[in-house]
Amino acid sequence: MTAAHDLVAPPLAAPDLFRSAFRQHAAGVAVITASGSGPVGFTATSLASVAAEPPLISFGVGAGSSSWPVIAEAEYIGVHILGAHQRRLATSFARSGADRFAEPTRWRTGPEGVPVLDGVLAWLVCRIVARVPAADHRVVLAEVVEGSLDALPDGGGRPLLYHQGRFNELRD
Amino acid sequence: MTAAHDLVAPPLAAPDLFRSAFRQHAAGVAVITASGSGPVGFTATSLASVAAEPPLISFGVGAGSSSWPVIAEAEYIGVHILGAHQRRLATSFARSGADRFAEPTRWRTGPEGVPVLDGVLAWLVCRIVARVPAADHRVVLAEVVEGSLDALPDGGGRPLLYHQGRFNELRD
Repeated sequence: MTAAHDLVAPPLAAPDLFRSAFRQHAAGVAVITASGSGPVGFTATSLASVAAEPPLISFGVGAGSSSWPVIAEAEYIGVHILGAHQRRLATSFARSGADRFAEPTRWRTGPEGVPVLDGVLAWLVCRIVARVPAADHRVVLAEVVEGSLDALPDGGGRPLLYHQGRFNELRD
Repeated sequence: MTAAHDLVAPPLAAPDLFRSAFRQHAAGVAVITASGSGPVGFTATSLASVAAEPPLISFGVGAGSSSWPVIAEAEYIGVHILGAHQRRLATSFARSGADRFAEPTRWRTGPEGVPVLDGVLAWLVCRIVARVPAADHRVVLAEVVEGSLDALPDGGGRPLLYHQGRFNELRD
């Protein structure tokens, strides 16, 4: 006979627990770019503001990712806050193998040689101040030096969100 | 006579640009807790997953915040992913002066003595592995050691979001 308490799921191991918990966590979506022998970039759901004076941001990047060799050496990176209309761009910059800067991606070379994507809610050019080892990832800290919200629609934009493995939007 | 291009807004200084850009960025909402001579905790919109094996998370905390003296010394912290129904809890843990653990906050002492809040989508007890100085803030890296999603409603929960200075929810 099986007692009711035997039907309770066993505790998850830490990696599974971590993954299940973060599927519940919603995040804004950003694309980080940098320039090496050519432009590189990737979709990040770990962008955070860290401090206001001086203005510092942080994000995580896999040390095995295709962008890392360039970001490991770059002095400046681009940070782009994506709008809800940019699911295709976010998907493209999360897909391995594809040329992320080919059509239909629209971009230009911005301040400090950083690739700047068109049509985002906001973009920032930031100077890297630290690359902190964290297992097989690095947490990058960078100071905002330039940027623009010029492409923002009147009244502000609608951000793209990521939750439970798919893109989403705000309710209001 | 004023030419049209004179009406274009001048470039923002970096701190103003940073603030305007991050008002466009949406974030999930978490509460970080720790235990010193008593429980401390604060609302964070900077929680991010960093690496999966071992499972690492990061968040930012002001070195001048009321929680920092405890988090500076703590070995373990609690991470709570808030649901859309927990706006009052998020507001309480963002307000200075109030006793954040008094009624109506429901909590208990969890693993490693960490304060665990009731009714969240997921909670994790994490061991701090680094406190990285970043201007007047610190970026804390911590490894997930235990936790639960037991309070999660069937089919998953609806996360609480923060955007443009106020709380919000997912559209779907």
